[in-house]
Amino acid sequence: MPQTAVYPGSFDPPTLGHLDIVERASHLFDSLIVAVGENSAKQSYLSVQDRIEALRECTLDNPAIQVEAFSGLLVDFVRSKSSRVVVRGLRAVSDFEYEARVAMANRRLAPEIETVFLFTRDEFSFLSSSVVREVAELGGDFSGFVPEAVKRIIERSRGAGRA
Amino acid sequence: MPQTAVYPGSFDPPTLGHLDIVERASHLFDSLIVAVGENSAKQSYLSVQDRIEALRECTLDNPAIQVEAFSGLLVDFVRSKSSRVVVRGLRAVSDFEYEARVAMANRRLAPEIETVFLFTRDEFSFLSSSVVREVAELGGDFSGFVPEAVKRIIERSRGAGRA
Amino acid sequence: MPQTAVYPGSFDPPTLGHLDIVERASHLFDSLIVAVGENSAKQSYLSVQDRIEALRECTLDNPAIQVEAFSGLLVDFVRSKSSRVVVRGLRAVSDFEYEARVAMANRRLAPEIETVFLFTRDEFSFLSSSVVREVAELGGDFSGFVPEAVKRIIERSRGAGRA
Amino acid sequence: MPQTAVYPGSFDPPTLGHLDIVERASHLFDSLIVAVGENSAKQSYLSVQDRIEALRECTLDNPAIQVEAFSGLLVDFVRSKSSRVVVRGLRAVSDFEYEARVAMANRRLAPEIETVFLFTRDEFSFLSSSVVREVAELGGDFSGFVPEAVKRIIERSRGAGRA
Amino acid sequence: MPQTAVYPGSFDPPTLGHLDIVERASHLFDSLIVAVGENSAKQSYLSVQDRIEALRECTLDNPAIQVEAFSGLLVDFVRSKSSRVVVRGLRAVSDFEYEARVAMANRRLAPEIETVFLFTRDEFSFLSSSVVREVAELGGDFSGFVPEAVKRIIERSRGAGRA
Amino acid sequence: MPQTAVYPGSFDPPTLGHLDIVERASHLFDSLIVAVGENSAKQSYLSVQDRIEALRECTLDNPAIQVEAFSGLLVDFVRSKSSRVVVRGLRAVSDFEYEARVAMANRRLAPEIETVFLFTRDEFSFLSSSVVREVAELGGDFSGFVPEAVKRIIERSRGAGRA
Repeated sequence: MPQTAVYPGSFDPPTLGHLDIVERASHLFDSLIVAVGENSAKQSYLSVQDRIEALRECTLDNPAIQVEAFSGLLVDFVRSKSSRVVVRGLRAVSDFEYEARVAMANRRLAPEIETVFLFTRDEFSFLSSSVVREVAELGGDFSGFVPEAVKRIIERSRGAGRA
Repeated sequence: MPQTAVYPGSFDPPTLGHLDIVERASHLFDSLIVAVGENSAKQSYLSVQDRIEALRECTLDNPAIQVEAFSGLLVDFVRSKSSRVVVRGLRAVSDFEYEARVAMANRRLAPEIETVFLFTRDEFSFLSSSVVREVAELGGDFSGFVPEAVKRIIERSRGAGRA
Repeated sequence: MPQTAVYPGSFDPPTLGHLDIVERASHLFDSLIVAVGENSAKQSYLSVQDRIEALRECTLDNPAIQVEAFSGLLVDFVRSKSSRVVVRGLRAVSDFEYEARVAMANRRLAPEIETVFLFTRDEFSFLSSSVVREVAELGGDFSGFVPEAVKRIIERSRGAGRA
Repeated sequence: MPQTAVYPGSFDPPTLGHLDIVERASHLFDSLIVAVGENSAKQSYLSVQDRIEALRECTLDNPAIQVEAFSGLLVDFVRSKSSRVVVRGLRAVSDFEYEARVAMANRRLAPEIETVFLFTRDEFSFLSSSVVREVAELGGDFSGFVPEAVKRIIERSRGAGRA
Repeated sequence: MPQTAVYPGSFDPPTLGHLDIVERASHLFDSLIVAVGENSAKQSYLSVQDRIEALRECTLDNPAIQVEAFSGLLVDFVRSKSSRVVVRGLRAVSDFEYEARVAMANRRLAPEIETVFLFTRDEFSFLSSSVVREVAELGGDFSGFVPEAVKRIIERSRGAGRA
Repeated sequence: MPQTAVYPGSFDPPTLGHLDIVERASHLFDSLIVAVGENSAKQSYLSVQDRIEALRECTLDNPAIQVEAFSGLLVDFVRSKSSRVVVRGLRAVSDFEYEARVAMANRRLAPEIETVFLFTRDEFSFLSSSVVREVAELGGDFSGFVPEAVKRIIERSRGAGRA
């Protein structure tokens, strides 16, 4: 049976670290759904539409990758896609504990769904969406942290990068 | 002299992990006060009254356990109860550092009060009040995470669990 | 193309935690090779033959799983099996850092090979081969830590469990 | 060439732990600029003016130490001072990961700037500005956590310490 | 019922950190047994007799404390003393994980025995028996790390401290 | 006064990570002594002479760097060089705790000596002497992990790299 994996996240904005996980995960499974979380309780930096557009532009050349919005419980979304695999990236010890808890909670909610982890490539281990947001908001040069398409969409949406 | 221990927390809501610590701590000391913190600065999920009611229902059969609200400095509350022992649960490395800092600050404020730690039972190591809140708010089944009485009170107070 | 994954370890002895990873990994990939490391520099507890026999007995009913010995560099073994995927279990923060280093070193040696991680099921998070060895050597009851077949082979090989 | 180092932070309020780093760092380099961050997005406990006044009072007797406000990207401030060295204190593992990420992000933004770390003296390892704020707001005695000058300014500004 | 707690360790040699835990634990329970492990597989620095002598000298004035040797499984020793409580000190994150595993393994072997943890006082958080051994063997002044009685016994047994 | 810093280690063998710290530390202080530890108790991989030769070859073009052997207590060596600064690299959380303990023990032994830390560059965060030794002994290609001079000396001394 072909395996479809789901890579969920807020991707606010997507970073080079996220895209690295996307590419590597797409080689492990037959198809990959990048699931962009809508969190109504939290003010986002980019809109879900912008984040989806950015991820689609960055993955255009790989037909095995789809980008979709999701809300509600992750396990419900994964089941609705007939997937049994969630992919997550791990950068650091602090990620580890948070991810371990989420994975264990999800296993209780849906024992048939497995969460697999990939270590972030070392050159991106410091990188997070919040670092990008902070550097961008302070007018710093964040072009080394995100793909070109993401940079363009951040500048269009936030008017950042005027420096 | 009989030892009274205080187990403080926000218990918002109480989880099976909290109740496990309550029960185990009650065997170590002559009596145990579960102290439910009122934090006026933070919007709570359940009211203090609901949290106290839930904890009382879950500990009805153990006369050595009392449940009370507290506000202000923990060490002042502990002293007011003629106790010299604070009990806390430890789940993970991130707990460890936070708890270590709080315990050390409390020792400076009240050197005669000792903080003792119990490791959370492994099957609850992923479990936190915030996991319960998140699953409940997204309409997921959180009945494996809390005692029956807590589930009922969450549903009554929040109207959750309609799924 | 069908994916073959390699799950390497010393499995000295195999524990219930190892077998849990074996089973879960076998659902993620088309076939799984459990690779039992021969480390000539270190005195082992069970012989490689015993460890292989134990793992084979425990995985008899799953034809997608093979058990083999390996020595030398892991990436050379993985390549020799035409595999591009290594599977490892993660229990704790201390595992995390060691595993991160090994995965990064292996990526330098063989960039085409991906290492994926599964979190150990919470009820086995404390469990390691060294815990089993220590309890067994002190005459304790380790039957809750290993499959029945492993217990039998430890007793046959070490004369343990006489208590 | 004489080395000027920059020790940035929010110092809200300055603690004995911060002052310990200030003093030790001032011995390592020819001059030290304590850079008090203005974070317009976050409500501060003390005003930048109060924090600067407090730090200046505590470092009056050391002419090699200057206290200044800064806003914007840290690396821009460091360059504007013709400095190439940032100093930070490390208390705990959780600091470690945050600090590692910030240092790596800054290295991408300004490769010529080096970040050096000093471990907080063990008797201050639990101490943070947030511990001081919390104890002060609850009416506890925080005089063991901050220099006398800081205590006075907190009481003047917040009306705390009335107990 | 009076509570007897067991504080096990190798105490090779006992440090000021160990003695701090001994004293604080003795206030929490009615009596405390300091259990000095004999590990036949490992070459010790001080003999079990020397370690017991040192601990006894340091706890002479507290009749609630006994010092004894133990070998075999800890849980068997605890049961033989009619105790249900094990005490351990925690210094750091690395301690945390090791201690969590041992506590969980012991709970599987003896569910009625509880392990409680005390955080090491911050001024001893760096201190371990191995630091003492290393400084002593290199001829350094280790008198700030151990009680006077321990220093004397180390010098008598090892001929250290000649510098 | 010109600052001389000491960078101690076993450097067995020196890696690209060590050389990165050497170069960055040499920019922070007026001169840098790389201190190669002789540990008589532990069998080393390369002889002290080989390690010193390797480090000297790699630092030939920087007259501010000296390479020397040391034995005994580090603080005694640092004092004998009229230095007050020790430099260490930090890669990961596990480094952090070990280094924190050593730094605190050294502060007790020599309060006037300060230990400063630099984070290892992210692309070397996985790299350690033991990784190099293991890959070299298994016949793997370790040329991406060490400077050319180190590679040559390892091959000369160990006959490694024949593959």
